Parts: sequence; structure tokens; C-alpha cells
Amino acid sequence: VDVLLAGICNTDLELARGYYPYAGVPGHEFVGRVASSPTDPAWEGRRVVGEINAACGACEACRARRSTHCERRTVLGIKARDGCFAEALLLPLANLHAVPDSLADEQAVFAEPTAAALQVQEQVGVAPGMRVAVVGAGKLGQLVARTLALTGCDLLVVGRSRRSLDRLAGLPLQTALVTEPGPSKADLVVECTGVPEGFLLARSLVRPRGTLVLKSTHRGETRVNLSSLVVDEVTVVGSRCGPFPKALALLARNAVDTGSLVDARYPLANALDAFAHAARPGTLKVLLRPSPDDS
Amino acid sequence: VDVLLAGICNTDLELARGYYPYAGVPGHEFVGRVASSPTDPAWEGRRVVGEINAACGACEACRARRSTHCERRTVLGIKARDGCFAEALLLPLANLHAVPDSLADEQAVFAEPTAAALQVQEQVGVAPGMRVAVVGAGKLGQLVARTLALTGCDLLVVGRSRRSLDRLAGLPLQTALVTEPGPSKADLVVECTGVPEGFLLARSLVRPRGTLVLKSTHRGETRVNLSSLVVDEVTVVGSRCGPFPKALALLARNAVDTGSLVDARYPLANALDAFAHAARPGTLKVLLRPSPDDS
Repeated sequence: VDVLLAGICNTDLELARGYYPYAGVPGHEFVGRVASSPTDPAWEGRRVVGEINAACGACEACRARRSTHCERRTVLGIKARDGCFAEALLLPLANLHAVPDSLADEQAVFAEPTAAALQVQEQVGVAPGMRVAVVGAGKLGQLVARTLALTGCDLLVVGRSRRSLDRLAGLPLQTALVTEPGPSKADLVVECTGVPEGFLLARSLVRPRGTLVLKSTHRGETRVNLSSLVVDEVTVVGSRCGPFPKALALLARNAVDTGSLVDARYPLANALDAFAHAARPGTLKVLLRPSPDDS
Repeated sequence: VDVLLAGICNTDLELARGYYPYAGVPGHEFVGRVASSPTDPAWEGRRVVGEINAACGACEACRARRSTHCERRTVLGIKARDGCFAEALLLPLANLHAVPDSLADEQAVFAEPTAAALQVQEQVGVAPGMRVAVVGAGKLGQLVARTLALTGCDLLVVGRSRRSLDRLAGLPLQTALVTEPGPSKADLVVECTGVPEGFLLARSLVRPRGTLVLKSTHRGETRVNLSSLVVDEVTVVGSRCGPFPKALALLARNAVDTGSLVDARYPLANALDAFAHAARPGTLKVLLRPSPDDS
């Protein structure tokens, strides 16, 4: 797949900091065009996005239809498979999804993180009126908030900077700074801060018998009062990759605004500058374009 | 309620070690006889067990039918309510359940921990063939294992001592010492060790997208790799008090053997000796009888 556009995710920054011992080309958010498809040439020339977990199809997890948890998986830009911060990448056909013509590259590049955001709703039923809090208004928190806002839930987004929270203006949700007095407890809290400290705040916002969804991956361990989870009967749900078809459907309907999330565009040759930019506090999506002249 | 018989739980031992700042009469597992019931004298003389959370009936949790999480609750022998290691105790009528005549005191005294064991199945659906591991074969682990064994699941109990595991002989389950080579991963793991170290072993046994139920309450915090919960999309469920009617029904049908769990009986006057006995490794249930001559 020739890469048309790629996005920098917090996981890429964490990988660079040593969160996971990966050595190879990073990057897992992309939109591209199929350059070669020997198995099924009909795919050649199609604009695609791709699921990042390449599964074996034979292990216990694959046979149980949990292919994103394949025991022998490679993961684009994360585990034993070179990623999309490159001119081209390789993925199995099974991982590809054709991009509707109506979707611009700058929208389609959000398919992977939008799918990850939608995974919350795959794992936990969200209903109108349910009190939901999203902790963290960064790259992923924005998409989690924007997808949850579609459900009619009673949504609060808690963030560290007013500037990030202001990007959510106009959406049916409330915002609060982490420094503001504690809001009331929520039925569902989604932790999207990307830092270990986010857990404690998120935990404090969950009501007894409530659910805490964890989306952050970062290095190291966190001190957790497990007994308080027992006493309050809290459910903690780890959440990773999500449903691409639903993400593409929402993006194609312009139901999730992504334009306001793009903070910068860099040519691939300046990827190090792009990484430095993406790591600056308050920065949301930074995009990389391998061939700026093609656009 | 005049106490006929009371049981010592690991939480009682942890309270004595300072797990929670409670000062008062401890004890929350009991069978007794109603001595006085001004509101409804029909209860007087009835043999009863009692739910330990006394709820206000008015707060948000109570109105949402989560009365075990009442924001103003007192908890028998744990929080602002003297417990059952005494001649008598006070509970609201709403907390009492009449004990069937067929049930001996030494069975009925297990109603509270059996209900706590059954709470696992209230929170997580357990089906025949499901791979379930119970970590910890102590006081609560035994009851969790014995109630899970009724479901037809594929059950493994992992414990620190062969002696405790041998108490499960004859039941439809496998046992393994913690020191034995790692067993295969389970769909559901229930952590019942009562010690912080139990979490790590229990976590290691959960398959991706599996569920880890926590039953242990103890002092202090545990270092947890939260990112691994995200990557493996594990669900962690805190689990506390459970359904008394179901517990009584199972006990009345002799579906859960409790006789093999009783290791010692002490008169209440020797409660300190009883506590010391209960704290010895490998000891299961130690019972306290306020009035030995009544039996």
C-alpha cells in the first residue's frame, strides 16, 4: 500500500520513549492506495485504510474470533511489522477497508483512532442519559468524546488545558478542567490521558458499580488500590482497537468532525520535526505526507 | 438478634491489621434468633441470617437499587455498626432472611460468605465449559470454587497449600499449586487470595478479552501494569456482597458442602484465641459461639 497520509498517535510517542521494545518503522494510522495485490488484483488502485493487527487465522484467539488478540499477530508499526511512516507498507488483504470516495484523505486517516474510540461502545453499552466522563482531551480523548456525544449520553470531558477543551465547543457535552472542584460521579468513565496519573482521577469519578474504561498505553506501572475496586464493585475494562466499518461510516456521514483536530502537516522527510511537534503539550493530530506533491 | 453462631472471615483479620479504620465490635457472618422486633413482632423467635449493609433507602444508590452501595450505609462489624462477635446485634428487618428449619446453624452461618461467592455469578455469566480459574483456596476461595463447580464450567483452583486444595477432593474441578508450571489461560479468573500478591498471579492467568474478578480486600496498594490490561482488553470486576436468598437455597439443598470447611469452634469468651487460630496459614473457617450451652 502506498501511503497517502499518516497520523501520529500518542502510542507512537510512547514507543519512542520505550513503552514497548519495538524496533522498526513506526506509524499505524494511515490512508493509502493499494499498489500491488497479487492475490486479488481487483484491489489495486483502491484507496484504503487498514486494521493494524495482522492475524494468523489459526491460533485459539483467531478461531474464537478475537483476531485482534491473535497470539502470533504482528501489528503495524508496533510489533514485528514496519509501519506507515514510510512511502509504503504491507498488510494482508483481510485488513483493508476501501475508503468511500466522498471521504477526503484528511478524514480517512482518522479511521483507525475513530475505530479505537468506538471500541468503548463495543465493550460497554452507552445509553441516552447515562452519565459519562471522558478524562483527557488529547488526540484520542477528543475522538472518544466526539463519538460518545452521538449517543445522547450526559457527557463531561475533563482536560488539563482549556485550549484542548475548547476544541469541543458546540458539541452536546460539558467540559471541566482537572483543577476544577470534583464533578459528580459518572456511570462510565473513559481514561484517555495517556499518562499514568490519569488513572487516579478517572477512578475517582466512577460511581460504585460503575465502569472505568482504560484507553491509555504508557510505560510503567501504576499503584492501584484494588480493595477499593472490590468495595465499590467497580468494573475496569481495557480497550484497544475497534471496528473500522463503523468508523468509516461515521466519518463518511460527517458525524465526527476531524478537521478541528489537525494541528500540523509535515512531509515525511521532516518526520522528526513532526514528532517533536506532536509531543508538545496541547497538540492534537500531526499528519505526515510521504509525497507532498501528489496532493 | 441473639447470635447463635458467628464465623471469622479474612476481612475480620484484615480489619484487625488496620485495613480499614473501624473501631467497634467486629464480625459479620452469623446465624441468630430474633430477640425483639418492635416493628413486626412476627419476626420474634425466628432463626435468621442477615445482610450486612444497612441502607438509608433514600440516597441515589438506594434509589437506583444498589443498596449495598448506599452512600450512608453502616456495615455490620465493618463500618459504624457493631458486629456479630457478641451476644446480640442490631440490624434492620429489611436485612434479615429466615433460615429454613432443615438448615443447621453450622450451615446457615455460611450464608453471608456463600452469597459473596455467588456474587461472582451475578456479575459475570458463567456457562458450562467456560474455563474458570480460582486463585486462592482459603475461606472465600473454597466457597467461590464450590459454587462455581455447580455451573459445569471447566474449573481450576490454584492454591498455596496442597492441604487446602485437598479439601476440594471429589468436586468436579482440577487443582494446582501456585508453584506448579503455569496452567493455560482462563476465560474467567477469580482472585480470592486475600493478599496483594494474589493479583499478579491471577492477572497472568486471564486470557485476552477475559475477565478477572477481584474478591480480596486488604490493606495497601498494588503495582499494576494498566497498559497490559488495555492491550489485552482484560475486564477487571470488583466483587463484594451477594444474594442471600440464592445462598440459602443452595445451602438448604446441600449443594454446597460447608462441613469440610469448619476447622475449629470457640466460645465467644475465647475470641482472641479464635482469631489467632483463624490467622494461622491453612486454616479455613473458625466459628464463635456466644452461648456454648445452648447448642
